[in-house]
Amino acid sequence: MRIAILGNGSVTRSLLPLLARDDRFAVAGIHSRSKPAAVSFEDFLDQSGADVLVELTTLNPMTGEPAISHIRAAFARNMHVVTANKGPIAHAFHELSREAIERKLDLRFESSVMDGAPVFNQFRNNLPGVQVLGITGVLNSTSKLVIEEMEKGGSFEDGLAYARKLGVAEADASYDTEGWDSATKTAALANVLMDARVTPQQVEREGITGWTPDRVQALAREGKSVRLVSRAWRSAERVMLMVQAEVLDNTDLLASGTGTSNVILFHTDRMGTFGTVSLSPGVEQTAYGVYSDLVDVLTRC
Amino acid sequence: MRIAILGNGSVTRSLLPLLARDDRFAVAGIHSRSKPAAVSFEDFLDQSGADVLVELTTLNPMTGEPAISHIRAAFARNMHVVTANKGPIAHAFHELSREAIERKLDLRFESSVMDGAPVFNQFRNNLPGVQVLGITGVLNSTSKLVIEEMEKGGSFEDGLAYARKLGVAEADASYDTEGWDSATKTAALANVLMDARVTPQQVEREGITGWTPDRVQALAREGKSVRLVSRAWRSAERVMLMVQAEVLDNTDLLASGTGTSNVILFHTDRMGTFGTVSLSPGVEQTAYGVYSDLVDVLTRC
Repeated sequence: MRIAILGNGSVTRSLLPLLARDDRFAVAGIHSRSKPAAVSFEDFLDQSGADVLVELTTLNPMTGEPAISHIRAAFARNMHVVTANKGPIAHAFHELSREAIERKLDLRFESSVMDGAPVFNQFRNNLPGVQVLGITGVLNSTSKLVIEEMEKGGSFEDGLAYARKLGVAEADASYDTEGWDSATKTAALANVLMDARVTPQQVEREGITGWTPDRVQALAREGKSVRLVSRAWRSAERVMLMVQAEVLDNTDLLASGTGTSNVILFHTDRMGTFGTVSLSPGVEQTAYGVYSDLVDVLTRC
Repeated sequence: MRIAILGNGSVTRSLLPLLARDDRFAVAGIHSRSKPAAVSFEDFLDQSGADVLVELTTLNPMTGEPAISHIRAAFARNMHVVTANKGPIAHAFHELSREAIERKLDLRFESSVMDGAPVFNQFRNNLPGVQVLGITGVLNSTSKLVIEEMEKGGSFEDGLAYARKLGVAEADASYDTEGWDSATKTAALANVLMDARVTPQQVEREGITGWTPDRVQALAREGKSVRLVSRAWRSAERVMLMVQAEVLDNTDLLASGTGTSNVILFHTDRMGTFGTVSLSPGVEQTAYGVYSDLVDVLTRC
């Protein structure tokens, strides 16, 4: 299967060795703004002769663009799409899914939430007939690193610098600390797993920017910590979504795991409450999620 | 798809409504020692005309029998098998798998560990090329309920009585408290996910029977608790397995979740460490796991 890759950041660099070790895949080309492989993205797609586009551009939580247009351009050329970008899923999941189905193409996005740990594919492949009634998660790594750094005596900026060094901060880190990354993930989860029709703007949202080293250290002395918690639930009429900084006991499952660790819980009808934890994932896991999606597309072709 | 059910306990009672709501399935008969549907189990299978046997007999952690023989009897009649019994997987996974493959039949056992939360199917369906290097889990509900009861001032026996009332204790509850249930689950996980060739007897095993209300209450005052922890890892030559009562901080992920809650962590090559938590599952979730296996068998037929 021939793969065209859009974006040339840390995920692309971690993905290439996975693809190189699997002779079912061939990389037809890598295109990015800093290292263009053609005059335009469309020319790149046309020239690649690829079967699938791997879309790894950076997030715009307000619009999901230009990733949505990239996905549509690939569909128009009869290419499947795998993306790690949550923007399109948060803003246009149902439209893009319908277009994919009409063209008999696949759209996969496992790495858009929880860095490649199976979430979307878990429900697609393993949980027939299960209805998701609600979702609770701690999904943003950067805000957690900032809180932990402040607990250790560092500043807000020290935490951000560390998150940038690990490569987990969004290009614009205010998207992390103001809750936009979490809101986008929450909207994506709700659109896919709860059949919601929401955008990140509809998520009631509060970030961690109001927290200071003094405040988090005072909580730490009481055995408590702060986490940016995502919540989704069904009201009588629609799916409600909220992202807010919550004070949690350190014994709370949502507070467990250090560093970039994430946790997500699904509240369901037939399977009660269960979920996934991912301990200190990095870009390698995001890249693996993209790889697992590519294998999924390949085996369905 | 016609289903023959062996065993008539709480899982069967929870499974029947799930099957009744799905017109792809028909129950051909239910056979148990207390309510036999035929003179012998073999006659029951022959008369059922079933496509798949659902094996829900009770665990014998020492041998995996008679469940192993039941599975072979079904294979001999060209029937797929879904079981919630971990004994056969802990004692004869590789032999049974080979027999199933030779006859082009499916053997599924999602509910044998973690009560139906996707574990085996997760690796089968969602994680191509991931190697499991080690496993850490808190997998036995009864021992946890006993510890919690003693923390609250009750006796060991009070805890066991509560576990029996919830329907989560093994028929012989010493299998829970002496670590046999955990050892059998650990061996099953290692056989399937780490390509081990082990039996429960090869698991270094220690139960919770040495713990008293006084001791667990003293730990609780220090913010600690006891959990029966399963561990598997690779040594230079083989897969090592251990089950032991470990003293954990209450902030430890392995100590999180109350009641029947379980947690399992996989240490892997490409996906780092991640896992599944299941909060307060009951027999409904075990029954759902069997149902999800049946859907999997159906869609592959």
